[in-house]
Amino acid sequence: MVIVMESEATEEQVDGIVGRIESIGLRAHLSQGQERTIVGIIGDERLVDPQVFEALAGVERVVQILHPAKLASRDFHPADRVLDLGKGVQIGGNDVLIMAGPCAVEGPEQLEATADIVAAQGVRVLRGGAFKPRTSPYAFQGLGEKGLQILREAADRLDMLVVTEVVSNHDVPVVAEQADILQIGARNMANYSLLRAVGQTQKPVLLKRGLGSTIDELLQAAEYILDLGNQRVALCERGIRTFEPSTRFTLDINAVPVLKHLTSLPIVVDPSHATGKAAFVGPVARAGVAAGADGLIVEVHPKPTEALSDGAQSLPPAMFATMMEEVRRVAAAIGRGVA
Amino acid sequence: MVIVMESEATEEQVDGIVGRIESIGLRAHLSQGQERTIVGIIGDERLVDPQVFEALAGVERVVQILHPAKLASRDFHPADRVLDLGKGVQIGGNDVLIMAGPCAVEGPEQLEATADIVAAQGVRVLRGGAFKPRTSPYAFQGLGEKGLQILREAADRLDMLVVTEVVSNHDVPVVAEQADILQIGARNMANYSLLRAVGQTQKPVLLKRGLGSTIDELLQAAEYILDLGNQRVALCERGIRTFEPSTRFTLDINAVPVLKHLTSLPIVVDPSHATGKAAFVGPVARAGVAAGADGLIVEVHPKPTEALSDGAQSLPPAMFATMMEEVRRVAAAIGRGVA
Amino acid sequence: MVIVMESEATEEQVDGIVGRIESIGLRAHLSQGQERTIVGIIGDERLVDPQVFEALAGVERVVQILHPAKLASRDFHPADRVLDLGKGVQIGGNDVLIMAGPCAVEGPEQLEATADIVAAQGVRVLRGGAFKPRTSPYAFQGLGEKGLQILREAADRLDMLVVTEVVSNHDVPVVAEQADILQIGARNMANYSLLRAVGQTQKPVLLKRGLGSTIDELLQAAEYILDLGNQRVALCERGIRTFEPSTRFTLDINAVPVLKHLTSLPIVVDPSHATGKAAFVGPVARAGVAAGADGLIVEVHPKPTEALSDGAQSLPPAMFATMMEEVRRVAAAIGRGVA
Amino acid sequence: MVIVMESEATEEQVDGIVGRIESIGLRAHLSQGQERTIVGIIGDERLVDPQVFEALAGVERVVQILHPAKLASRDFHPADRVLDLGKGVQIGGNDVLIMAGPCAVEGPEQLEATADIVAAQGVRVLRGGAFKPRTSPYAFQGLGEKGLQILREAADRLDMLVVTEVVSNHDVPVVAEQADILQIGARNMANYSLLRAVGQTQKPVLLKRGLGSTIDELLQAAEYILDLGNQRVALCERGIRTFEPSTRFTLDINAVPVLKHLTSLPIVVDPSHATGKAAFVGPVARAGVAAGADGLIVEVHPKPTEALSDGAQSLPPAMFATMMEEVRRVAAAIGRGVA
Repeated sequence: MVIVMESEATEEQVDGIVGRIESIGLRAHLSQGQERTIVGIIGDERLVDPQVFEALAGVERVVQILHPAKLASRDFHPADRVLDLGKGVQIGGNDVLIMAGPCAVEGPEQLEATADIVAAQGVRVLRGGAFKPRTSPYAFQGLGEKGLQILREAADRLDMLVVTEVVSNHDVPVVAEQADILQIGARNMANYSLLRAVGQTQKPVLLKRGLGSTIDELLQAAEYILDLGNQRVALCERGIRTFEPSTRFTLDINAVPVLKHLTSLPIVVDPSHATGKAAFVGPVARAGVAAGADGLIVEVHPKPTEALSDGAQSLPPAMFATMMEEVRRVAAAIGRGVA
Repeated sequence: MVIVMESEATEEQVDGIVGRIESIGLRAHLSQGQERTIVGIIGDERLVDPQVFEALAGVERVVQILHPAKLASRDFHPADRVLDLGKGVQIGGNDVLIMAGPCAVEGPEQLEATADIVAAQGVRVLRGGAFKPRTSPYAFQGLGEKGLQILREAADRLDMLVVTEVVSNHDVPVVAEQADILQIGARNMANYSLLRAVGQTQKPVLLKRGLGSTIDELLQAAEYILDLGNQRVALCERGIRTFEPSTRFTLDINAVPVLKHLTSLPIVVDPSHATGKAAFVGPVARAGVAAGADGLIVEVHPKPTEALSDGAQSLPPAMFATMMEEVRRVAAAIGRGVA
Repeated sequence: MVIVMESEATEEQVDGIVGRIESIGLRAHLSQGQERTIVGIIGDERLVDPQVFEALAGVERVVQILHPAKLASRDFHPADRVLDLGKGVQIGGNDVLIMAGPCAVEGPEQLEATADIVAAQGVRVLRGGAFKPRTSPYAFQGLGEKGLQILREAADRLDMLVVTEVVSNHDVPVVAEQADILQIGARNMANYSLLRAVGQTQKPVLLKRGLGSTIDELLQAAEYILDLGNQRVALCERGIRTFEPSTRFTLDINAVPVLKHLTSLPIVVDPSHATGKAAFVGPVARAGVAAGADGLIVEVHPKPTEALSDGAQSLPPAMFATMMEEVRRVAAAIGRGVA
Repeated sequence: MVIVMESEATEEQVDGIVGRIESIGLRAHLSQGQERTIVGIIGDERLVDPQVFEALAGVERVVQILHPAKLASRDFHPADRVLDLGKGVQIGGNDVLIMAGPCAVEGPEQLEATADIVAAQGVRVLRGGAFKPRTSPYAFQGLGEKGLQILREAADRLDMLVVTEVVSNHDVPVVAEQADILQIGARNMANYSLLRAVGQTQKPVLLKRGLGSTIDELLQAAEYILDLGNQRVALCERGIRTFEPSTRFTLDINAVPVLKHLTSLPIVVDPSHATGKAAFVGPVARAGVAAGADGLIVEVHPKPTEALSDGAQSLPPAMFATMMEEVRRVAAAIGRGVA
């Protein structure tokens, strides 16, 4: 941590900073420039809240040097982490993992049909929402526990895993009982109670980046889960809020290599939510894989025009088959398989 | 709702849209342009999920005409809503309501001192965090229930109300028992389980705008609470995420008159989180009142340099007194008082 | 400037950095942390392009300590700069300066009527566009030189100053001949050829912040003008691009106190472009003054419904009169007059 | 165009809108909803400035139905436009075109070395800046005309084309004489004088998206050039401003398929400026091609650590060779070649 003093900071103020640093068991290191004094902190700066120093007299600003998410960082765990998800399925290894299914579970018929469609393309992880976070209270909110059962049955029939969202700590036990992977949605990335609740399970977690959250904050959200002993966390870029109105969100493709650099946790891309329109899902899915993503999560519906939610961004069977074919070829081009 | 067809949309596709509209009990109205056909929906479009139509063949895009948050809208309740908060304190009337206190309750001594400071300036609502949502799992997380008791005791001694954040549905009963106003923080604005939980209490709610959320989404979050019968909701602009790095967030001052136009619920401005730096809190607080805010929520600490969180943005006693004096004068300039 | 080395940086790489720093006549200062080595640069870092160091082997990132805009900074010129604009009109002193007039000069009749309306409220600076930058090539592009003459004549009749936009270096001489203040619009803030051209005149410049530009970039744009010897520069916050769609732009109200802290140049707020809607101009104008702006620039039209451009955000005479009255009262509340 | 009336709009106000529409030779079409009246405009809405209607009494908002950039749109020119750039080089056909070279021309030696490096990989278009737009007036501003000559000579020796930026209308003739392709940089995308100047040449134009500009605005900037008769325009996505600080900009990968949908002009991706760091250029270049880009423009330097500008994002020879190899494989995976 580097503390930049104001140009008019007094010697007394600098001494105050140094004293404060030493009082918490770290060492200070002064650098006297022409126009500013800089105080460096020697020791584990992750133990220090930068705001504590920002509040001190004479301080202009505080620059963090280390990424605050220690357990998530590649410094801490240099080798790519390959997560076992069950039934022989992994994420983070050489194969790109595809997770696919409908936005919401609407009933057994729709889900079974979708499961057949995605399984026919070799997909091993079935996605589907049972508890749905919806912007409007008047929109379809999901089937809840009944939806979980439908998911479980369809997956078991086809020897698939289930990934589904959990939106409340209260629901964690029931979701953890039925699902193989717990998804934390973008709107709950900074719901720290929920992060702690899933951190206390031993289920793999798919953690989506908040739509207004930085990459650093995503890593710190993962840190909540890792810190509680649950080491199986995959991170998902699903589009951020920008000024561009032509798509629902803006997929931050840079985030893929940036995250691969900062962390060894697996990275997933969600082209469905990032674009909001089926016609753009294929190109963005290919881009995600080309950029180095370890997985994709994609919305598929047997009849998108009849979907109860997210129909516009759900791929119908033929488009999904085309996407899978293209994704396989792009993955092969960079030396990876698709699972 | 207006559905814009693609330029190459067929007559059959247009008929499909019309059929779908009529199947849900609404009427369609066609407008044949030179290059596009437009289908208008006659009836209560709030009952319709726009995504359903976006998914249909031949549709280019769907434009919502009505604001989807009906109960929150000024159309539904034209007159400014004045909320009774208890102990004779109101928000939404002619007086601008000030809520002030520390970021986090650190202990009885700190809180009592702060309560005295703000009460001395005429403040009737004491803020303070007992359950703290923190970006890093290693930062101070608040005193929890003990913090609530400390808040309650300090407030009772000075005949003040307590506003404090609730971060989990599980905590709603215990917070509702001790606090007068339940705050939903920016990171939980789209935590719909939590919104429903506070909607089921009869406590006033201070709902903060998510840092990546639009004004429309804020109104729809309020709608969750209103729809469950809890009519006492105040909305808070606390800064949004933008590309500007010199402040923690960017206060969307436009949001004040925009919200006053769209809704009759009271509007609060939080200059502390929006700027992140004590020196900028006063000017932005004055701006919020000048723009028409019905309330301010401000962080105050007896010794910001010793604060366990948010010290940099907390006002020390003298700066808070100055801010109050200036805010009173600005409020008077536009014909309002300060309470 | 502080250079943060990668965790795996070698001693040789650190030596390379130090050598490079010394080769340009500055001194290096090493700080060896537990996980990272940091190299500080002692000397005037403004002479150093940070990208040069970002490219060196072993460097993780480079942190600038000093604001790169030296001449614009308050460090360089601590006292508020009061700019003489001519005819006894100043900006940057105790009085808030109002500049008002139509978006575009449409003809003598419209302009004379507007000039009368704003002069009647005591306004001394007439704004109006003769050369208009328009998003669409099919929109009204302004009257050009003829518009300048119309502006000049109307202003002379009422002893007013003229502020108008210049959009091309080629036009600088002709605009400088007729106008008293040269405006650089948001879309040209980083048009460095144009900045140099106005820097070579001795006319005061109103420099608008680019809609995607940071505060630091605005100061560096001003630096281009100051560096060429033209010291009369006022900066204008006119709204930035964010994800919020309910207004044309988002006025960054924080920028007012931040700029007042970083620079002693006068700060102007443009509530018309920042909101795009007449109903919101008054509240945001009041907020700008309350936050400490030294001036406002506002669009006024005798009949906004007949305006050739920006009608929706132009104030009709009665709303302008109300705004002026309210702005005077808010200015008085913080100890300032209005000119 | 669809005009949404306010809920309290009077019949007289609706009549006023209709009259205004008819007065400009178009037809109006009313749709009376339960809560709002909507007025549709029948005819070429591109002739109408939406702001004219936004200003009228009783209007809530105006929704544009057609994209305002007619000549650029795919509606106007459905087939992909393949642009001849000279010397047998094309963009927009089946082959992905690579443009590569240093950020700035620093001298004959550096440029010749770079040209050899990129030519050795089969690159036919040499990029290099002679006139540099720099944020700080104290940074290296380019060699100007001398730089152009150096570029021309190096390109001629290797039978390559030159693409270089033009930053001022004044420079258009001299740049057009030496270069084969005129680049408009992000900071000048809305410099309409410059757009008109390049529109009046017959040189191909590489138009970069402004860092705070929407896709629609990019298309309208292209329209300025097309409207003057210059039909050879390629569009470049080079990253936009967002809240994410870990990269210089955020590449909007969605923009690639969105632009391919809206326009038949060729689309180029710039992974160097979008990321700002050499390590991320390769992954993002691959992503751009996978998403469907028709070209890449990449910064290469023989010794990035000695570059006068943008060294951190310039690829050294070996990394460039790797990128080219990977890009070829990804292009092949989607059925395209690389030229």
